[in-house]
Amino acid sequence: MRRFTSIADIVSGPGLASALTDALTLKAEPWRYPEVGRRKTLGLLFMNPSLRTRMSTQKAATLLGMDTMVLNAGSDSWTLETRDGVIMEGGATEHIKEAAAVMGQYCDILGIRTFAGLQDRDADYNERILESFIRYAGVPVVSLESATRHPLQSFADLITIETLKRKPRPKVVLTWAPHPKALPQAVANSFSEWMMQADVDFIITHPDGYDLAPSFTQGAVVTHDQRAAFEGADFIYAKNWSSYTDYGQILSKDMDWTVTAEKMRLTNDARFMHCLPVRRNMIVADEVLDGPWSVVIEQAANRVVSAQTMLLHMLRELAR
Amino acid sequence: MRRFTSIADIVSGPGLASALTDALTLKAEPWRYPEVGRRKTLGLLFMNPSLRTRMSTQKAATLLGMDTMVLNAGSDSWTLETRDGVIMEGGATEHIKEAAAVMGQYCDILGIRTFAGLQDRDADYNERILESFIRYAGVPVVSLESATRHPLQSFADLITIETLKRKPRPKVVLTWAPHPKALPQAVANSFSEWMMQADVDFIITHPDGYDLAPSFTQGAVVTHDQRAAFEGADFIYAKNWSSYTDYGQILSKDMDWTVTAEKMRLTNDARFMHCLPVRRNMIVADEVLDGPWSVVIEQAANRVVSAQTMLLHMLRELAR
Amino acid sequence: MRRFTSIADIVSGPGLASALTDALTLKAEPWRYPEVGRRKTLGLLFMNPSLRTRMSTQKAATLLGMDTMVLNAGSDSWTLETRDGVIMEGGATEHIKEAAAVMGQYCDILGIRTFAGLQDRDADYNERILESFIRYAGVPVVSLESATRHPLQSFADLITIETLKRKPRPKVVLTWAPHPKALPQAVANSFSEWMMQADVDFIITHPDGYDLAPSFTQGAVVTHDQRAAFEGADFIYAKNWSSYTDYGQILSKDMDWTVTAEKMRLTNDARFMHCLPVRRNMIVADEVLDGPWSVVIEQAANRVVSAQTMLLHMLRELAR
Repeated sequence: MRRFTSIADIVSGPGLASALTDALTLKAEPWRYPEVGRRKTLGLLFMNPSLRTRMSTQKAATLLGMDTMVLNAGSDSWTLETRDGVIMEGGATEHIKEAAAVMGQYCDILGIRTFAGLQDRDADYNERILESFIRYAGVPVVSLESATRHPLQSFADLITIETLKRKPRPKVVLTWAPHPKALPQAVANSFSEWMMQADVDFIITHPDGYDLAPSFTQGAVVTHDQRAAFEGADFIYAKNWSSYTDYGQILSKDMDWTVTAEKMRLTNDARFMHCLPVRRNMIVADEVLDGPWSVVIEQAANRVVSAQTMLLHMLRELAR
Repeated sequence: MRRFTSIADIVSGPGLASALTDALTLKAEPWRYPEVGRRKTLGLLFMNPSLRTRMSTQKAATLLGMDTMVLNAGSDSWTLETRDGVIMEGGATEHIKEAAAVMGQYCDILGIRTFAGLQDRDADYNERILESFIRYAGVPVVSLESATRHPLQSFADLITIETLKRKPRPKVVLTWAPHPKALPQAVANSFSEWMMQADVDFIITHPDGYDLAPSFTQGAVVTHDQRAAFEGADFIYAKNWSSYTDYGQILSKDMDWTVTAEKMRLTNDARFMHCLPVRRNMIVADEVLDGPWSVVIEQAANRVVSAQTMLLHMLRELAR
Repeated sequence: MRRFTSIADIVSGPGLASALTDALTLKAEPWRYPEVGRRKTLGLLFMNPSLRTRMSTQKAATLLGMDTMVLNAGSDSWTLETRDGVIMEGGATEHIKEAAAVMGQYCDILGIRTFAGLQDRDADYNERILESFIRYAGVPVVSLESATRHPLQSFADLITIETLKRKPRPKVVLTWAPHPKALPQAVANSFSEWMMQADVDFIITHPDGYDLAPSFTQGAVVTHDQRAAFEGADFIYAKNWSSYTDYGQILSKDMDWTVTAEKMRLTNDARFMHCLPVRRNMIVADEVLDGPWSVVIEQAANRVVSAQTMLLHMLRELAR
């Protein structure tokens, strides 16, 4: 793979089934390929804070014998301009064209983390920053979350479901939940995109006005009745996102959508999932997160497996 | 050791004498065990700035062959909530419960650095943040300074005294000194706790109102007469702390308490110690810090030895 | 070399021709000496943001088998006092004397990055911070850019010119260009100093009032006629700097000085150089930077070669 930015890169590359098999192998035996990344450098550019992505990707690189260099745009380094053709007379000191190309000189694989600005839907959904970075980097690029997707998270989510499911085709529910701030749709988009290619019954539930972009959910079952959605579910995946149609707006902070123990009891003893960080008692009640349903920590652990699998495929292709 | 947060963890573990012997061995031969940490990852979480702790602990890990991942809460990563049961609708994006548990999935040993808030004495002295982190981390934890103690510093201080003492039982003085800001009692508490178990004559001197918590100093000789305390001293350990009784308050910035050359001449040619960073000409005059008395740089160098010894014990226990 | 802060350290050390030969060898074979830095630690202290210097120096250290520890003053660590004799009652928590000496205990070679304050010309041109750091570090120090010079950049620039020149003695033009903020003279000073010792015809062009410090440009051809300077040039090196005589002031933002394609056509098909980060359409038009003239990315790539050569020399001297 020359890039890993969405499930499409896996499908057109190793194939989803093959990637999943590799992932389960690495989960069982993390140190299986300690030399494959020898003398290769992974560069990670963060334009936003990160705990899991930062640490799990570093750890994945270490397991493969790679060296890692981490750069925080704006604190470690310069603030980046991402628009084309502008006169750079403002706060941004460097254009992403140069930043990407230079990092590509120092690293064999690059990762970039960027968030949706939530101001300009077209700019976000065209993935201007990510695509610009890929275009100028000159080396393979892995998305560490972009404006509209979080593929390393979604792959970890799939690994989690595959290893914890108790029936061949589990029922998976993605539920919106309240949050104090406007968040991107990336995790929800990405999770939907992956679930629609997985062997699961997938249903999305959210309040009125929170429909995700059609390109990510076409054909998915959507309901505004959260309780009906929960019935018989095997996995509850909670996430907040801001409105796609009324772009970037918070239309509701309705705490009736918080995931509670009472709601979990409607399910088929479902596993509770969230990508973290999670707002306790907004997204989900303490009783759920601290109770037997929660698999969020194992899910976070699978971030290492997810990243390691993708890096392994990229390293193998570099070695050809 | 499953945790290193105070001298009690050494006493109930390898024993202080044994730890000190190991430390002196490692000081003489830093690369003695370059493989013991192979394929083990140390994660360091900083909730406050740090130079010595950050670098010395990384160096100690490198000497043992460990990989290190460093995370700055609030800049690299999310701001953390530390209270239980709250509705997380404010600035904090992640609860320390999840942060600790997730880091524990990625790392074999964790270190955490946190300061006293100096607002709520009970919260600080119950070590809410440190204990919460330990409870949820699921892996051994080393304190990189907590609200009430700085054990890696105190162990380095003991190593410094052991290697530089010129008599079997030296006189060691802990003196308060002025500082422009309100500082925690952690270093002073911790140093007292260690000195009271060491083979030294220990005396504390500070202005009225600056008594440390009784649990750390019970049985220690305390005087408000700094000059009397200095007489015949072999080691002068200067430190500022805010009031424990009038919690977190600055009761004095009296520059008569600054350590000067004239006061050092009252001593038995004492060594001058400070944990650093030090406010020159507030805590101590340039003439002392730049003069023959100062051993603050060697003391800082011993931070590597201190951290390496503790990591070595933890790694050995992991290997069992 | 015990220090690398200017071309003088190379001239009085290995000699410029020898350093250049080593550089070309390392450029061709980066992994030639993967063991020379084994068990040696490089410490990098940044008092300002950095992308190229940070990453290229880390990469150079990795290529030589060194471990690296990076510290950002003010965010990772404490803010540093650099003046002598002051009562430290303000914002700075630690004196550079202690910071340097402590880092010297943890590292075998140190790098420091600092900028001109542009307030006090004497302080900047006396290199107070850099020289203080070197004085107290106790280990070899490499400048990662200082108030008045950027030697790793200049050496990379020389490598770039040497490898891309199409005649034995090319014409090299340093041209001032507009920028929205007041910048140090360091890169321009340093480039001048190096070019005057290189086998090139060197000419400087800038608006009235932008003469560089005489010590860096004595004997150089200087003109205020940018177009005349560009005629027949083989290399155009663009850079903004604030006034040296009217110290730290912006005397002009005249966009007539921006490097455009039309101006590049006056040259002998010159290569366009800039140290980056570059303000697009202020310093240089998109058409130049994205056109066939630009070698800024290769120039940035040579930063690894430059740093690796200097570290190699320092490591060899440590091994003696």
